[in-house]
Amino acid sequence: MMTRGLKLVIEYDGTRYAGWQIQPNGVAVQQVIESALANVLGNPVRLRSSGRTDAGVHALGMVAMCTTNSTIPVRGIQASVNKLLPDDIVVQSISEIDREFNPIKEARRKQYQYTIYNGLIRSPLMRHFSWHVREKLDISAMRRASAFFVGEHDFGAFRASNSDAKTSVRTIMSVQIQAQNNIIQIDIVGSGFLKNMVRIMTGTLVDIGRGHYSPEHILALLENKDRKKAGVTAPACGLCLLRVDYDESIFPPTGS
Amino acid sequence: MMTRGLKLVIEYDGTRYAGWQIQPNGVAVQQVIESALANVLGNPVRLRSSGRTDAGVHALGMVAMCTTNSTIPVRGIQASVNKLLPDDIVVQSISEIDREFNPIKEARRKQYQYTIYNGLIRSPLMRHFSWHVREKLDISAMRRASAFFVGEHDFGAFRASNSDAKTSVRTIMSVQIQAQNNIIQIDIVGSGFLKNMVRIMTGTLVDIGRGHYSPEHILALLENKDRKKAGVTAPACGLCLLRVDYDESIFPPTGS
Repeated sequence: MMTRGLKLVIEYDGTRYAGWQIQPNGVAVQQVIESALANVLGNPVRLRSSGRTDAGVHALGMVAMCTTNSTIPVRGIQASVNKLLPDDIVVQSISEIDREFNPIKEARRKQYQYTIYNGLIRSPLMRHFSWHVREKLDISAMRRASAFFVGEHDFGAFRASNSDAKTSVRTIMSVQIQAQNNIIQIDIVGSGFLKNMVRIMTGTLVDIGRGHYSPEHILALLENKDRKKAGVTAPACGLCLLRVDYDESIFPPTGS
Repeated sequence: MMTRGLKLVIEYDGTRYAGWQIQPNGVAVQQVIESALANVLGNPVRLRSSGRTDAGVHALGMVAMCTTNSTIPVRGIQASVNKLLPDDIVVQSISEIDREFNPIKEARRKQYQYTIYNGLIRSPLMRHFSWHVREKLDISAMRRASAFFVGEHDFGAFRASNSDAKTSVRTIMSVQIQAQNNIIQIDIVGSGFLKNMVRIMTGTLVDIGRGHYSPEHILALLENKDRKKAGVTAPACGLCLLRVDYDESIFPPTGS
């Protein structure tokens, strides 16, 4: 019997979950998928993911992996698992992967999108997928500020106080800010992220958009690494993990 | 005591409502707003709207009007009503209007948007706001077909069988189809619409996108007016009433 590795790309609406990771209070996305997979594969399943998402955060392309002795083809596994999953979680694809594949260590790039609803009146249609900021934001100041994030920096000012990462040095490849009507979308690509990093970066950019600080405030924060001087942690519901990229070579063009 | 007319622009997530109009089964958007308004204005309120929306249909800019003897300024009414409304309904604006204002008869243009999620696997993030169509659609065929709708035509083939409108002649000003990633958005502007008209137009465009008919099928349907030869009524949840436009002169630049 041969043990296979399976790589899953998962989309979920995080609104009613206590986050990705299994924990004492509330239902986690991870456990819902593990139980559906166990049911289909006929063995207990423990997923390893490319990272965690907080309660209320969404994902279009979370990556996770598991191993199994089942011989069911990947397409069959995917179809059966998706029938068992609730309508706010789905497996977008499954492919065969080396069973030693480490979804955290081998991740090369992650892309997050943060959505702000910048209107005077709250939006029912956007309420689960955005942060409602009433004050008109200065987008060009936010764009100038965001450019300072690009590159390798110590993001000590942009991590949760209970973050347990050994180093706070990370590399941001790009930050793009799009604004249309009342909707502002911040797309951030990086090699890796600290706990709450995107949400604190967003909170700080919003402070700059409100005119509380100049764009150069980012430079000072990257220098002084003082979490207390950065902005608030933007609400979870505005955040979505868009995709996680790995070296092409890791993925032979097989499977679904 | 002077009776004032109030024009309201309303946004709602229609997911958990039985539609706009009050009816025996389920909660209607109209009654939720009427009861909040009655509470604030101190008199019973009956809203007249620019039209109805079916159960599950959303609105970004539904227009409705009511009359009141209250002297509370419009901004105060709006703030108080919005505090009473649930998080899936909001009044985006209130302005003073002639109390004889007729939101149906005086409407000049309505804009609807229909969203299709055109991916193999269902999308949790889009589930309440799109129609999931699995087969890859031919967008350019759909665009060619949509051009035939523009102009004044008899839309007898594109109305619900229980529609009670006296005439089925309507004018469509534009149909625009945008496609990005797996999301297709159909924007339709017209002087007025028959019951289910946008949803049947969409169902027919999807049949053409699937290759079941050529774009010229629309011409034949506008000629033969046969509902049975048109496509299915696309699901309600993909539809959103974006805006209703009136003559500028009807709205003095007062109020919010």
